[in-house]
Formats: sequence, structure tokens, C-alpha cells
Amino acid sequence: MKIIGHLINGTLVSESSTSGNSRVQEVTNPSTNQVTAKVSLAAKATVEEAIAAAEAAFPAWRNLATAKRVRIMYRLRDLLQENAAKICELITLEHGKVLGDAMGELQRGIENIEYVCSTPEMLKGEHSKNVGPSIDSWSEFQPLGVCAGITPFNFPAMVPLWMWPMAIACGNTFVLKPSERTPSSALLIAELGIEAGIPAGVLNVVNGGKEAVDTLLTDKRIQAVSFVGSTPIAEYVYTTGTAHGKRVQAFGGAKNHAIVMPDADLDNAAAALMGAAYGSCGERCMAISVAVAVGNDTADTLIEKLKVQIAELRVGDGMDGRSDMGPLVTPQHLEKVESYIAAGINEGAELAVDGRNHKVSGYEKGNYLGACLFDRVTPEMSIHSGEIFGPVLCIMRVETMQEAMDIIDAHEYGNGTCLFTRDGEAARYFSDNIKVGMVGINVPLPVPVAHHSFGGWKRSLFGDLHAYGPDSVRFYTKRKTITQRWPASGVREGIQFSFPSNQ
Amino acid sequence: MKIIGHLINGTLVSESSTSGNSRVQEVTNPSTNQVTAKVSLAAKATVEEAIAAAEAAFPAWRNLATAKRVRIMYRLRDLLQENAAKICELITLEHGKVLGDAMGELQRGIENIEYVCSTPEMLKGEHSKNVGPSIDSWSEFQPLGVCAGITPFNFPAMVPLWMWPMAIACGNTFVLKPSERTPSSALLIAELGIEAGIPAGVLNVVNGGKEAVDTLLTDKRIQAVSFVGSTPIAEYVYTTGTAHGKRVQAFGGAKNHAIVMPDADLDNAAAALMGAAYGSCGERCMAISVAVAVGNDTADTLIEKLKVQIAELRVGDGMDGRSDMGPLVTPQHLEKVESYIAAGINEGAELAVDGRNHKVSGYEKGNYLGACLFDRVTPEMSIHSGEIFGPVLCIMRVETMQEAMDIIDAHEYGNGTCLFTRDGEAARYFSDNIKVGMVGINVPLPVPVAHHSFGGWKRSLFGDLHAYGPDSVRFYTKRKTITQRWPASGVREGIQFSFPSNQ
Amino acid sequence: MKIIGHLINGTLVSESSTSGNSRVQEVTNPSTNQVTAKVSLAAKATVEEAIAAAEAAFPAWRNLATAKRVRIMYRLRDLLQENAAKICELITLEHGKVLGDAMGELQRGIENIEYVCSTPEMLKGEHSKNVGPSIDSWSEFQPLGVCAGITPFNFPAMVPLWMWPMAIACGNTFVLKPSERTPSSALLIAELGIEAGIPAGVLNVVNGGKEAVDTLLTDKRIQAVSFVGSTPIAEYVYTTGTAHGKRVQAFGGAKNHAIVMPDADLDNAAAALMGAAYGSCGERCMAISVAVAVGNDTADTLIEKLKVQIAELRVGDGMDGRSDMGPLVTPQHLEKVESYIAAGINEGAELAVDGRNHKVSGYEKGNYLGACLFDRVTPEMSIHSGEIFGPVLCIMRVETMQEAMDIIDAHEYGNGTCLFTRDGEAARYFSDNIKVGMVGINVPLPVPVAHHSFGGWKRSLFGDLHAYGPDSVRFYTKRKTITQRWPASGVREGIQFSFPSNQ
Amino acid sequence: MKIIGHLINGTLVSESSTSGNSRVQEVTNPSTNQVTAKVSLAAKATVEEAIAAAEAAFPAWRNLATAKRVRIMYRLRDLLQENAAKICELITLEHGKVLGDAMGELQRGIENIEYVCSTPEMLKGEHSKNVGPSIDSWSEFQPLGVCAGITPFNFPAMVPLWMWPMAIACGNTFVLKPSERTPSSALLIAELGIEAGIPAGVLNVVNGGKEAVDTLLTDKRIQAVSFVGSTPIAEYVYTTGTAHGKRVQAFGGAKNHAIVMPDADLDNAAAALMGAAYGSCGERCMAISVAVAVGNDTADTLIEKLKVQIAELRVGDGMDGRSDMGPLVTPQHLEKVESYIAAGINEGAELAVDGRNHKVSGYEKGNYLGACLFDRVTPEMSIHSGEIFGPVLCIMRVETMQEAMDIIDAHEYGNGTCLFTRDGEAARYFSDNIKVGMVGINVPLPVPVAHHSFGGWKRSLFGDLHAYGPDSVRFYTKRKTITQRWPASGVREGIQFSFPSNQ
Repeated sequence: MKIIGHLINGTLVSESSTSGNSRVQEVTNPSTNQVTAKVSLAAKATVEEAIAAAEAAFPAWRNLATAKRVRIMYRLRDLLQENAAKICELITLEHGKVLGDAMGELQRGIENIEYVCSTPEMLKGEHSKNVGPSIDSWSEFQPLGVCAGITPFNFPAMVPLWMWPMAIACGNTFVLKPSERTPSSALLIAELGIEAGIPAGVLNVVNGGKEAVDTLLTDKRIQAVSFVGSTPIAEYVYTTGTAHGKRVQAFGGAKNHAIVMPDADLDNAAAALMGAAYGSCGERCMAISVAVAVGNDTADTLIEKLKVQIAELRVGDGMDGRSDMGPLVTPQHLEKVESYIAAGINEGAELAVDGRNHKVSGYEKGNYLGACLFDRVTPEMSIHSGEIFGPVLCIMRVETMQEAMDIIDAHEYGNGTCLFTRDGEAARYFSDNIKVGMVGINVPLPVPVAHHSFGGWKRSLFGDLHAYGPDSVRFYTKRKTITQRWPASGVREGIQFSFPSNQ
Repeated sequence: MKIIGHLINGTLVSESSTSGNSRVQEVTNPSTNQVTAKVSLAAKATVEEAIAAAEAAFPAWRNLATAKRVRIMYRLRDLLQENAAKICELITLEHGKVLGDAMGELQRGIENIEYVCSTPEMLKGEHSKNVGPSIDSWSEFQPLGVCAGITPFNFPAMVPLWMWPMAIACGNTFVLKPSERTPSSALLIAELGIEAGIPAGVLNVVNGGKEAVDTLLTDKRIQAVSFVGSTPIAEYVYTTGTAHGKRVQAFGGAKNHAIVMPDADLDNAAAALMGAAYGSCGERCMAISVAVAVGNDTADTLIEKLKVQIAELRVGDGMDGRSDMGPLVTPQHLEKVESYIAAGINEGAELAVDGRNHKVSGYEKGNYLGACLFDRVTPEMSIHSGEIFGPVLCIMRVETMQEAMDIIDAHEYGNGTCLFTRDGEAARYFSDNIKVGMVGINVPLPVPVAHHSFGGWKRSLFGDLHAYGPDSVRFYTKRKTITQRWPASGVREGIQFSFPSNQ
Repeated sequence: MKIIGHLINGTLVSESSTSGNSRVQEVTNPSTNQVTAKVSLAAKATVEEAIAAAEAAFPAWRNLATAKRVRIMYRLRDLLQENAAKICELITLEHGKVLGDAMGELQRGIENIEYVCSTPEMLKGEHSKNVGPSIDSWSEFQPLGVCAGITPFNFPAMVPLWMWPMAIACGNTFVLKPSERTPSSALLIAELGIEAGIPAGVLNVVNGGKEAVDTLLTDKRIQAVSFVGSTPIAEYVYTTGTAHGKRVQAFGGAKNHAIVMPDADLDNAAAALMGAAYGSCGERCMAISVAVAVGNDTADTLIEKLKVQIAELRVGDGMDGRSDMGPLVTPQHLEKVESYIAAGINEGAELAVDGRNHKVSGYEKGNYLGACLFDRVTPEMSIHSGEIFGPVLCIMRVETMQEAMDIIDAHEYGNGTCLFTRDGEAARYFSDNIKVGMVGINVPLPVPVAHHSFGGWKRSLFGDLHAYGPDSVRFYTKRKTITQRWPASGVREGIQFSFPSNQ
Repeated sequence: MKIIGHLINGTLVSESSTSGNSRVQEVTNPSTNQVTAKVSLAAKATVEEAIAAAEAAFPAWRNLATAKRVRIMYRLRDLLQENAAKICELITLEHGKVLGDAMGELQRGIENIEYVCSTPEMLKGEHSKNVGPSIDSWSEFQPLGVCAGITPFNFPAMVPLWMWPMAIACGNTFVLKPSERTPSSALLIAELGIEAGIPAGVLNVVNGGKEAVDTLLTDKRIQAVSFVGSTPIAEYVYTTGTAHGKRVQAFGGAKNHAIVMPDADLDNAAAALMGAAYGSCGERCMAISVAVAVGNDTADTLIEKLKVQIAELRVGDGMDGRSDMGPLVTPQHLEKVESYIAAGINEGAELAVDGRNHKVSGYEKGNYLGACLFDRVTPEMSIHSGEIFGPVLCIMRVETMQEAMDIIDAHEYGNGTCLFTRDGEAARYFSDNIKVGMVGINVPLPVPVAHHSFGGWKRSLFGDLHAYGPDSVRFYTKRKTITQRWPASGVREGIQFSFPSNQ
């Protein structure tokens, strides 16, 4: 049985070799629930070892010319492309998503690395001449020191690539703790980073559970933590990390609504919703899980079109190129999603398409669930208030766009949302006023491109700055402002007791 | 006896009129300890009334053209200049600092308003064409909603002007709670803001103590809090505010060292240190309270020059134009500073100049303390580890610049620091490596100009973003990213189950 | 008879006092054609005197702290508001436009000054740490030296305010040559600038004609020229100025089309076209002089609505608050516009509304022309190819939006254009593809706001950078890049014969 | 004999195949003066064919997602690294510079490509919400169309890489005309570009002479021209191109001075000057050709150290890894440099080291000249006023830094300059005031890194914007500003005849 260990100070290590304990957790294939490997769960001492390596590597790394740090990213980009098939296979085997979707995920990660190649430009400070007589002033954006990332099971390759490439390009060193359910792709990518030229200690990976997380959140040497996961854990990470003097950005849950207007191209909208609701089995924080139809005619037509397409949806093993949708990640998660469905029925929603009891031949033990479609969902139902994270799309019916927007704004989360329309004014009013951080107009999954930044509002994000893109440069650096005066020799000045101003 | 009340929804109100209680606290003149007024201490209900007014004013205010919001700032700037004498008198009477210093403070506040006039430029979002086929994407920086500011006694006019002008220019509404020791100037300035055209409810001022603070930190409608004060309170504000879902920046204490190199112009350095150490009686978070001399000759010469200048220092009533330095703010604070001096002597430092028992004729009951100078201070002494916030300058003696830098980097705080030298390399090495947020080269008080941002490192600042300048625009706004596609009529698209990337 | 002279080195001078000659030109009221003043026409020597004053003032001015230079703009802004009525009266008396329009013009000028208040932010250079071992590099944007502006009759107050406030805020000094037809408002504004605190020599005004222009274009001390006028002169200014080593931006003529789509709100569109076509008698480089209707129904309805509104249009003296439209600037210009109308009829266009022979009671000698509306205009007609600069709106009829866009793209000019529609896709396609610099969607006069920049494409602009806003900062400064290394004493380096790179 | 042809529309063509003529020019090895190939000289028709290909490719290329255009650059970067040895060999064989220097040149070119990878970030436009009621405005930076580059013999690989990668990344298409003396490396790099994925027609290369240049300067389809060469040709290119409606940046000659202060580390300074004066035989527009020593002691010591190092300088064939310096490019150029030396002697300068009649064994017919050192050069001598472009370093002796700066500022050129000192104030005064575009402090060749921009002042650059880095993005794009309003249905507006402002 393969043991998935850690990458510390440039070397792959297993837990026993570092801390003497041998705590491991099984890693399974969601399509079969067979164990594929065991992952080491780092003890506190192991995490501290990684932190120590990162701290030791920091001074030399920060002093390297920015362009040289960034140059490693070009090499890594090549290596990721060369190893794409291998990485995506690891994603599919551990997460269950279909291979094409894994490739989409990896490609997004590569695009984040491409943005990191802009770092020499993005790290430019602000320089002001003559802020006073012979006085210049400038602000630099210096690295923080050792940063940490804690990442979720659903994007095992992409989310780590939101974090550490920018962090280290800015001159920081890093400790990554991937999800213990889907650890292999992040570890392989980190190894490719080492191969690309990242010096020992600059990037470290520890696998683990709560002990590892808590060590990262409380160790004084960690300066900043980036987290992606569920809202309760995000809130815990944020409050614990900030209470220990760290800068934290913690991305939590979501419930993303699409509004479908009567003037929308409904074929387009239905096709877009299929991918946005059922892609990756709905296990995406940007999945559209609610479609709010404006007008009953809109709703009826939309549902009709969705039913046709759901009937053609191919659910099967992710490694099978014909599959559109794979299994859920674990039996426990399947059970949770099914309990949501049961609750929806109990609360009075109409289950227009029932995907339960879906069997995939040859994968009977997999965590399979077919696409489900609820109609006549209302705001207070648990299938609306909770984040299901499964292939369940809820249709809500309203009379006006404003009513739809009020439902969205009243929700706890504010990650993503989307409007289908042809009308310029509707688009402007929606994008201006909706209380959601990422907005699509006729774009169902408005994940910002890599040169913008990712972040929700309300309880979808704890922290001031968004992930990747320009905001991540600001997150992984701190401002230092220098005010400099070169006095003429022989010039003597009077004492000034008053507060200096630009009078 | 004058009662200093609150400014809520555009109207001056006293506490009793709003909550029925009549809790007040005395405001005194530090030069005489006579009571000059009583300040209302807002009850929770009063603060909530201000928050409600701010919340009600938000929707219309955010939709106003940015240029129109900013235009009010031009008018306010004029009004501040016209009323400068009156404002500065209020500062001096309540805080004790000399009038010229009050004018320096106010001028800095006006410079912050001038920067706020750049808001139409600073609020520009990032716009990307063709992020995909017929897809554009842009990021907007939208206001947060109701923001709050909690400000300290030592810069009663300037620090509020760091906060609310930018906050409201960005489209937010605001509740300010000034220091209850020095409330009058902030209130007058807010009234001038109303006169300048700020609509009712957009800017509110509540005076008060811990009850008011806690209401601001916990009320759900408050989206962000800016705080300036001591480190323990800053930490409390940060952890409490963030635990209640708010964005917080909390600025705390400081211990600012100057390094004096052997090649420095020592006349210059001595003159600069006089102002930086004793200006405003040392009650500034950017005061230089430690001078680290490199080499004993440097130390000896520096002390000799300082002694001459201290002998000429005029300590007296702040309203007297001949005074260089006024009284400390309260008898309690005088007592605390004197206990630090006693501890310094006990711990073995040499009190080279003893400013205790300084009497000012006609102001015998004032909180006066003359300039004090300690020699041979060592890192572990309490006069080095603590923030004295009084007219006490400590001289430390080291052999090398590196040794001096190590002392600074080992200190709890990292607000400001300064190097006196003529050497380009020393300046570059120092500014690059020192772990302090604001660095001066031959500039003793490196408070960044208004178009840069203010912020310390380590335990001098809790939060990601600095005060005023560019960082404050980011602090008072949240990023929203829109991805927009205008589909050609008649174009039908296939369903995409894979994660969308720029492949 | 009043003689309008020059402002040189801070003093008002008449031509005779400086060069001994006494060349003057009459200034007339377009509403009566009575002579209101005589304007001095500067000889070469007079212009050189102004240049010399500007050159002498440059070194001290460039070294002043940027914030101090900018502070004068706040004072000037106040003075412009206080003197608005007086300035606008001068505009109307010399140009003819109605007072409300003059106020609109002045307000835009004031908004340009407001943008200039952002200069401390806009002048920030780019600062890069660690571009090599202990090597930093930064780019500064330094002023050019003496700059010149040559401005047209139609916006006598606004266009000068596009130029010199930003130029001098960036640290340059300036010589302005206003239109000799409408010289008084620019001169008064410059005097207010001196009153606001602009030091002698920093801003100079010379009135004059071709001799003055040619002196500015060829004198070696002039570093940059901004020009607004007709395309032939703009081209002359550009080629002459650049051949003499100057940086030049020269804004020329325009022919601005609006496309009216069938889905547009035609009441809105008609109302918008009325102001955009006939406001200021069409004497605006952003006037809409062609409306391209998509579909004959659209054209018919639009014309019907326009006829109703034209019938209500009040043409009269600009000083009369009831007037919507005043006279043309000169009899010669009236004659030229009328010859265009005659040509249009000859070429086969239908004159749907004939504004010729419009008489205003009490102003029978004024250069009055009522609103004219041509239907069925085709691309090759002279009323389409030429810039009429009068109250003549041409309607063209096409079948598709693409056809309308092709007409626009084939035109010599590319200043402004506008689309009336409700459709998001039409708006995006139009703004993306149309070969015009300033585009309005449901905005008939898309003059960019002051924090953006003004500039046409094709033969509407000669030069790389647009007027006012961010581009003007770049135009009035030159980049200087410093690469700095502070060598450690005692370090010796080998000789490097190869080209240094970041390898 | 190899014929070097053109790359048009994705295909290598020879001249005869396109225009029927067969004009060629010999390409020689400067180390032997043997003919290595013949280069086709494009006739007008051939150039027009390339322009036509570029024009045809433009519409599809501009509409491609920016990230996709940029992605090709990553591939090209890899290909350049893989083919580096081959490219550098071509550089050395045609230009003569030593292989290590060729590698430095290529590496700089690769760094320019790395900067181009920042294009998605750099192309972001400025987006403003609420510039009026429901009105938004944004500025886009759109590509120009077909752009051209004309590049010099001395950096045959690097200078083309300053131009076309950024131009095409911004969405333009391109025609490059390399130097006919050193055509091979640019052509090979362009072929690698095609291999990397640049579509046919997007990048074209034509070899040629004046006919090709003039075609590019006058053809209406060319929108912009970037040129690097001598000042007379640069001026011709600028005036001709701008007169034909093109945007032009034309980089010309240089005379770069280093000032050596008495406090400088003279060993460092001498070593730095050796490389900066004699590297690439002085055939660099950033070569230091004058060292101005402040004080006779400084001069004497400096000369002494330089003599020692010159004695150790290895002059020989560029392909020989032991060579520090190769031959000059042509016999004609050698002759011209020697005539400068003779003039220097005649005018009274002291030839402290005479490199004439330097023979390299086995390469007796090569254009070899040893390092020459002149002492006591004065400003009016032709070796000071002219650009020698050979291995000739002139020492000037002055008493003060100001005197040295006056010499520099009086010179016709203002490309690069450098100061050797340890003093912070001297560095600041020099970099602030010197009238030169690229400034080094203890950096002898202050060529800006790729994320800054390259450009001289005075007659070293004709045009507003510098090469590569941020300025090149602005050069290769034009600003388009859109103002957009989405009117609420049913809202009717009054007609506005006044100029719209933000009142």
C-alpha cells in the first residue's frame, strides 16, 4: 500500500521518519470505494519541522531578484503541461470528477501560474519625488515570511495553485496542507515545483488533519494563512489565525443563484445551467444550485428543456471519457446529499427529476447519484438555505427580477451569481446592486479569470482580500513606506517641535 | 457647563435627549486641570440610533456620482482652513499640545482630505476585454455600507480625518467615536462637514466609552472598523470586530528608535531628535523615544548637543506662543510617566537630564514634566520595552549598525524608525531589512505623506491594510468581479460539464 | 475701446508696451456683430518674452513639492466658482453660446482642475526592489520644461483648462495662446490663477495669430505643444512642432454619427439628439451632426419627433436666459454653413427643416441660423464628408447596424459616436469594433469625464496621448529610469564584458 | 551561397519568388570579412505583400482572448532557450561580438518576452461606476492594427524582441525589417515564433534597405513604427512616419558619460568602466564612452587602474571563448573609428592607450581595434561631441560634480549616464537633475530591466513613449473611452442644450 507522505525542505518524507508516529488515513476511489493509498497525518512536530525549513529558507529567497524567483514559474508551467495526464488521473481517482473536468481544473491552476509571471510588474512600489524639500518617499511591498495554505478536497490541484505560486513569487516561503481526501495531485505538483528549481524549504507540503491545521494556525512563525473550505471551518480558521497575529483569508461556502429572465435565450440558459449545476457533481463552490425563473412561463419552459438534457446526461466513472458526471466524493457525503433531497420533498418542493438510486454498471459500490431537479423551491426550505454540494438543482419561481434579487441578497452566502438576459439595463442593475462578489451576465460560472481575483461576499469569505490575481499580491506582501532626505553637508536646521506637514 | 453631545442624522443631540440617561464625563484642560466641559457618554441605544441613521443614508449616497461625493470635500477643506484657529484652540485646550503643533496636526488632516479628492481616480476598477469569446470581465470596488472609526486622544483632529473622509468618499456612511478626553475638535469638524454638504446620516459622531465601543464592534450593521489607540485595546478591537464579521484595521502602540551613525551630521541629528522626542510631550505614536548611537564618541557628542538644546527648551502652556512643549494630558498619565522614570533609574540607566518637578508659573496644577534624557539604556529595561508616551528620550550605545538593527527587530513594536547617515549603502541596507513599517532616512518622524499610507508592523498594527492613502481606498471598498457575455441571437451552445478555463 | 493684452511673467501687458508694434484685431459680439474690444496680436518678440519668463520660472517650480503646486489648484477652483458669472458672460459675449451652455463648459473646466488635484497620486513612479543583487530600479515622471497650448474659439474657457493646470501641476511652466476671437475668458481665468498663487512666469498668456503660433512651434525652449482646432491646422501644428523636436498632441475635426436602432427609446433618442446636434449651434467637436437610423420606420418616427422639438426650439441672444441656441460665431462662419446647406440640397438631400433666414428681434445683425434637418443624406455628399460646425443635423437611412458602422468607419474622422439601443449585445459589438475614440451607449455626447481622457482616432487626433485625465499626466512628463546599486565597501568585482541581463 | 529571404504570411520566401527582382547584399563575418551569405533586399512590392498579410491577419488576431495570444510567448520563450546556442552563433558570426555577450543580449530579449507575459494585466482598462446617474464609463486600450519595426545591426536579436512580442500580444500584427548587416538571428527567432504558434500573417519579416524602410514609413496601412538606429535616421523616420499619419518612436544615438567621484570605490569603478566602454567593442547605444573624473587625483588613479586592466584585455574572434572583445562590424566602421582617434590626437587629447594596429593571429583581415584610452579630453573635441561607437574611452577632468553635470547636460544626446559614489546626497542630486533618460548609480550600463522602459532624452529619442516595459503597452495601443447609460424604460428626459458636466 502506497503511503503518501510530506515534502519538507525539498525532500519527500513519511510521517514515521519524522515524528515516530504512524498515523495514517485511507484514501479511496469514489467510483469504487476501494482504498488506493494511505496518507500520513502530520503530528505537530512534523508541521513544525516544515515551518522551520520555511523559516530558514526565507532570508535568501526574499533577497533573490524577483525576476529570478518568477523564472522558476515558467519551468513549472512547462512541467505541469508535460505531466497533465498524470496529475488529472490522480485528481479523478481521488475526487471522482471526470477527466475532462480535472483538465479544466488544472488548466485554471496553470493560468494562475501565468498570472504569477506578472509579479515583477505587480510588486512595483509607489515612488514620489519631492514630497518635501529634497525629500522623496516610496512604498515597497515586502514579503511577509512563512505563509500557509489549507486547501479543500474539491479542487485538489487548482486551489493550492491559487496560493503558493504567488506567495513564493512575492518572496515568501510556504507550507501547504492539502485535503487528506485528495492529497496526491497537490503533492505531485509540489514535487514538480522542486524539479523546476524551487529551493529546498521554500515550498513544503504536509498532509494531515486538525492537528496539522491547528499547528499552522497558532505557530508564531506563520505570518499568513489562506484557506478554502466550508463556512464553519473558514470562520474558525479566520478567528483562530487572526487571534494568533496572522493575516488570514478564509473562503467558505456558497449558494449560487442564477436568475433567468423572460427575454433570455432559454436554450442557452438551459445548456449553461446543466454544466453549472451538475458539473463535478455540484461539488464546486461556484456551482449554480438554484435557478430563479422570472415568470411561470419561463420556469415551465426552462424545466422542460432541462428535463430533456438531464435524460441525456451520462453519469459514470470519471476515468471513462464518455462520462459527463462522476460519483460524489464519499459515501458519507452521498448520504448527506440524499438527506437534503428527502428534506426537500418533505418541505414541499417538487422533485421534477429524481436521480437517486442511480447505478453504474461495474461501479456498483461507487458514490453515485444522478442529476436531481427540484421545482417550486421556496426560500425557507433547507434545500435552499443549505449548501448541498451535490447534483441537485432547485428551481424557484418569482414574478419580478427584484423579487429574485431579494432572495439572493437575503441569503447567508454571497459567492457567485448569474443573470440570463438580453437587456443591457437589466444587466447593469443586477451587477451593480446584487450583494454577491462574483457576478455573471450570461456566464453561468463567473469564476474570475486569473488576472482578476476570486472572492465572495457575506459569509462566503472571511478576510479583506480576495484570492489570486491582484489581491493576492497585496495579501502576500506588507507595505513599507520609506521617507528619505539627503541633507546638504554643512546645512544646519532649526528644531521643529510641531508635527511635520506639507504646509 | 457646556455639554458635548453627539451628531446623529445631521443634528447635534445630547445624550439625555436620546436615551434618557445622563451619563457624562468631565473634560479638563491639562495645563490647569480645570474642567472645561462635560461630554455625553453614549448608551448602546444612542449608538444604535447613529448606526440606523447611517444605514438609512447608505443607498442614496452610494448611488451618487463619485465626483459629487468628492466635491463636498473641497468645500470642507475650505471650511477647515477658515476655522483652523478655532479647531486648534480646542485641540490645545483639551490635549495640552502647543498651538503650532495643533496646527501641524490639522494641516496633516487637511492633506488627507486633499488625497480624498483623488477618489474618482482611485476608485477605478480593472477592465479586461476579450477574456474569452465575446466575454469581458471587470472588477469594481464597491462601498461596504456603514463603517465606524474609534480614535485616540493624542491626535483628536487628524486621526478622524484619516478615516471618515475616505470612507464616505468611497460611498460608505460612517459613525465616529472620538476620544472622550479630547472630543471637541472632531465634533466641530464633523459639523463643518455637514455645513459643507454631507447629507444627514452619512456622517455621525457619538461620544462615549466602552459601551459605545462595544456596540460598534458587535452591531451587525457595522461593516468595518478603523481604530487607533494602544496595543492591548487594538488587539481587543481587532479580535472582537473580526469575530463579529467585520473588516478591522486596528493601530496600536510603538517604540520608535533612531539609529545615529558616526558619519551623520550630529547637529542635524540632535535638532531632529529634539522635535521627534519632545514634540507634543512625546505623546505621539511616531515619537522617537530611543536613539541608538553607533560608537561611544557618537553617543557622547550627541548627548552633549542634546543637553544644550534641552536647556533651551521652553515648557509651558500650549496657548502661549512661546512654548515648545505643553503639559501631559492627565495627572494619571503624568504619574505613569514618572513611574517609568523611577524604574529606569532603578534598573541602572543614567538620567542625564532630569525634567521632573518642572513648574510652570501660573500653571502650577498642570501636568507638567520637563524633558528627560536617559543614557546607557539597555534592551531589557522597562523604559525600553514599554511605550512611555512622555518626554523621555533614551540613549542606547552599540558598536555596529547591525547591533542597533537587532535591537529594533527584537522589539514588540514595529511602527516607525529612522537612520541618520550620509552613506547610501547604509540607508539602503537599513530600509530594506529593518522590520518596521515606516522608515526614515535622515527624517526623524517618517509619517508617510497623504498619498502614501500609514501603518506599522508587528504588534503596532492588527489588520492587512494601512490607514489613509491608497490602502484606505482598498480598506473601505470590496471587490466585485463581473464576467459578461452577450450571446449572439440564434447561437446555440453545447453544454460544458468541465470547469471553464482559458484553454 | 478695451485692449486685451497678454499675461507675461505675472503681469498684464499690452502689445505696444512690449514690442513697440500695435497690431490688434477686433473682437465682436456674434449676436450683434458689434466690436466689444480689440485684442493685441503678439509679435514674435512678445512670445519669446513669455517663453523666457516661463523658462526662468521652471527650475524653482519643478523643485517645489508636488502637493504645494497642486494646492494652488484648490484656490483656483474656488475663484472660478466665485467668478463663474463673470467668466460665462465673457464666453457668451464673444462666442455667442447661451449662458447655461457657457456654465456647462466652465463646469467641465473646473472638473479638469479637480482631476489635477489627483496629481500627487498620478505622478507616482514605479519602484522595483532587488532587480539584481542589492540593485533597485525606479522610474520617475519628470516635467518637460516649458509647454505651450493653442486653443480654439468654441470652448474658450474649457480647453485651456484641459491643458495648463495639469501641465503646471506636473512641474512644467506654460505659455497659452487662446483664440483671438474669444480671448477674454481664458485671460481672466489665468489672472485668477495668478491670484490663486501661481508664481510669476509659471503661467503666461499671449494673444495672437499665426506669428505667435509659429513662434511657439519653432522656439527651441518649448518642449511640448497641445493644440485643439481644425484638422488641417492640427496636422500643420503636429508636423511643424515634431520637426522642431517637440512633443505634440493636436486635436482636429470631427463628424460624429449616432446610430439609432429600432429597439431604442425614440423619445429619448430624439431629445438627446436635439441637444447634441443644436446645442452651442453645433459648434462643438463632439456635436452629433449625423443620425443613422436603422430601418425606415425608425427614420420616419425619429424625424417626426425631431420636427416637433425643432419647432419649439428657441433661438436667440445667448444672454437671454430663455434662449436654447445662440448665433454662430462670425458672419463668415454663417456664410460657410449656409453654403454647406445649399450644397446638400444640390446633392439631393431633403431639407426636412430649413432654419435659414432666421431673424431674432432686436438682434437682426447677428449671425443667426435656425435648426436645419436633412433627410436621406448619403455618404458621399459634402454635408456628410465635411465638418459643418453649425446647427445642421443629417439623417441617413440604412437597413442594418453593420451598414451604419461601415459608414462611420469609412469616414475621415473618428472623434465621437453614439448608439441608441436597449440591447446588450448591440452595445458591446458597437463599442468594441467601431473605429472611433469616444463612444456613447445611449449617451449622445460621450465626452469622457475628467478622470478619463479625451481623444479621437483617425484624423481627429495627431499624437499618441489624449487630452486631460491620465493621459495628460503622461503627456506632460517624461520618464526617467534610475538603476541604483550600493556596493559594500571592500567588495571587488570582476569586469563584465557581456551585456548585463537578469540571468 | 545561402540566400537570406523574408518571412511573409507564415512562409519563408526569397526575394525573386515574390517580386521577380534579385537584389541582394553580402553578409560578412567581421572577424574575417569573408562573405557568409547574401540577404535579399525587399522591393516595395514585397514589403507591401507583407503588409497585406499583416492586415488580413489583424481582425481574427485582435479578437482572440489576450491570454491566448500571450500563451504563445511562453512557448517561444522555451524555444529561444533551446535554440540559444544557435542564435548566439548567428549573432557573433554576423556582428562580431563575443559569444558570451551575444548570450547576454539574447537573455535580455527573453526577459522582454517574460514581461510580455504580463500583458493580460497591463491591458486592463480603467472602469468608473456612477460617473452620472446610472452612467458608467471605461477606457479600453485597443490594438492599433499593423505595426512595423526597423532595427539596428548592433543588437540583432534583442531589439526586435523589444518590439514585436509586445506589439502582437496587444493584438496588433507586425512587419519587422532587421538590419541587413545582421539579419539571420532575427529571422530565426521569427521562425521560432511561428513554430510557437503565431498564426500566419501576424508576424512578418522583410529584409531590405532604404526602399523597404520608405515603404514602411509611407504605406497607409502601417499604424505605428518603432525604430532604433542613429540620430539622423531616427529623425528621418520620425518626421516621415508622423507626416504619414503614423505613431512613431525612433531611438537614436548616444554619448554616455560616467562621473567618477573622489569617494567612489575606484577599483569597482575601473572594472565597471572596462566592461561598459569596451564590451561589444563599444558598439552599444548604452556604452560608456566618457568618464568624467572629479579631481585630478581621481583621474590619475582611475587611469592607472584602467591601464592595468586594458593590458589584460583579450581581443580576438568572438567565437573563441577566451575573447573579451571581438572585431568592429565592418572595415568602413573601423576606418571611421580610427579617423575619430586621429582627430582626437590632432585636437590635443592625450592617447594614453593606443589600440590601433591590433592584429589577431589567424584573423588578420578582421576589423580589429584594441582598446583605446584618451586623457584630457575637452567638451568641444570631436571625440566628445560625436558618437564614436568603438572601443574608445575618453577621460575628462573636472573640479566639481556640478561641472561634470554641466558637460553632460550640454551634450546633444541624453541616453544614459552613471555616477560612481558612496554618498547618498550626491546620488539623489545627480539622478534628480541630470538631463538624461537612463541613470545609473554605481551601475555602469543602466539599461532598465524589462519591467521598466528604455528611452533617452534630447536627441536620443524622437517620440513620446519609451521602448519595452509599460510604455510599450501604451505605444502599441490606443485609448477608447466608452460612456454607457442604460435608460429605464418609460423614463423620458428633457432636452439638454448645455454642455453636459458633472454639476
